[in-house]
Amino acid sequence: MPVLSPSSQRPVVILVETQLGENIGMCARAMLNCGLEELRLVTPRDGWPSASARATAADADRVLEGARVFANIDEAVADCDRVFAATARQRSLRIPGLDLPQAVAELRAGPVAADGGAKAGILFGPEASGLDNETLSRADRLVHFATNPEFPSLNLAQAVLLFGWEWRQQCCQASAEAVTPTQPRAHSDGSLANREEVQVLLNRLEQALAHSDFFPSPEQRPHTVRALRALMTRGNLSSEEVGLLHGVLTALSKNETD
Amino acid sequence: MPVLSPSSQRPVVILVETQLGENIGMCARAMLNCGLEELRLVTPRDGWPSASARATAADADRVLEGARVFANIDEAVADCDRVFAATARQRSLRIPGLDLPQAVAELRAGPVAADGGAKAGILFGPEASGLDNETLSRADRLVHFATNPEFPSLNLAQAVLLFGWEWRQQCCQASAEAVTPTQPRAHSDGSLANREEVQVLLNRLEQALAHSDFFPSPEQRPHTVRALRALMTRGNLSSEEVGLLHGVLTALSKNETD
Repeated sequence: MPVLSPSSQRPVVILVETQLGENIGMCARAMLNCGLEELRLVTPRDGWPSASARATAADADRVLEGARVFANIDEAVADCDRVFAATARQRSLRIPGLDLPQAVAELRAGPVAADGGAKAGILFGPEASGLDNETLSRADRLVHFATNPEFPSLNLAQAVLLFGWEWRQQCCQASAEAVTPTQPRAHSDGSLANREEVQVLLNRLEQALAHSDFFPSPEQRPHTVRALRALMTRGNLSSEEVGLLHGVLTALSKNETD
Repeated sequence: MPVLSPSSQRPVVILVETQLGENIGMCARAMLNCGLEELRLVTPRDGWPSASARATAADADRVLEGARVFANIDEAVADCDRVFAATARQRSLRIPGLDLPQAVAELRAGPVAADGGAKAGILFGPEASGLDNETLSRADRLVHFATNPEFPSLNLAQAVLLFGWEWRQQCCQASAEAVTPTQPRAHSDGSLANREEVQVLLNRLEQALAHSDFFPSPEQRPHTVRALRALMTRGNLSSEEVGLLHGVLTALSKNETD
């Protein structure tokens, strides 16, 4: 029997603003079919816990019972070293897009923290609309599912299943080949900054920019912040680099506290 | 766009004694997501056509409308050159069993009839019990899904999806191998900034930092600038983003020209 990664290294499935409890239940079942157990929910529309989720989970109760609910996306990904986002559409955020097999290969390749606890999360959006740009800008990678272009739209639990299945297949294959693939790291030293570190930096930059009247109008502000976030996220900053950028910000913003 | 086999060579999905119309609708959607269109039904419990199938098919109407209903399994597979059967359990029938990827590879390998019309069908059983031995005995191959052994049972439409997905992946891969592999692009739009644009930005940042007494010593300056350059280079900035960062720098460095 192939040995999967320790549970601490298995990706976390994060369902954002899911509308139907039934779909959450089906996602839990699909996850457990593939050996994924950690589920997070960002403001599920019909509340939590959910009787309809339990009804469709087909005994994947431990996934539902372990699910954690978050008030917003930033809290949900705060401890994640990497965040991937499932989306059907190409967006204009300039975040690298990968096909599902590539995405899983990249997820599996690491980085792994010194304690083996590096966390990766994958976001799935609401049934009707998918993830919006605001949420996608938190992602390191967009994950595309190469479905039939004439009929591309996957049911939520189907998308979760394909992700889990691909992850499981690659783990089993690797285990069968008894090979540990190693991918070149984004940086040769320094641990990857987690989401919270990047967010703190971004918040500080946003404040400094607001203080300097950088935003021409309140309407443009979210768009600009998203662009900056996408840019920082794409760079796979290390904690050391985040520290460097704080230093830069301090140096440049001497008028910040004027 | 990868070219799939002609529809006459795509496998036929045969649902045997399905209990719920909802599940038939979800199977139709999953099939069309993967480019499979030919659906057959053997004595669906709740009759046919089915309003609940239509409700869950999410516009995969043409699969439902083209579905043919059969009174027994022999009629359903009468024109099939090969019959595969999806089953979770190992049976005692001494029919060769294959994992899903192997099964799809074998399906794709032929044989193809002289008129190109060789037909392969794959059977999926009722939700609660799966295919019985009587039906399995019609199969050339049993297809096993390598799910989590602690929680193996797939929802019917999930199993159909995984079959269709694997089939589509293998077809696309075969088609893509005839093409020069392309590296995932860092971004889908926006032109990449060239080295000179990045260098100008970096020079300006370095000047601003020097002006703000950022560098603790002249010796450390090259090291820090290298770190900043690496960070910017890794981000694959677009020209637009370089412009944005110039704007940020201007806003933050109001004391730059003091």
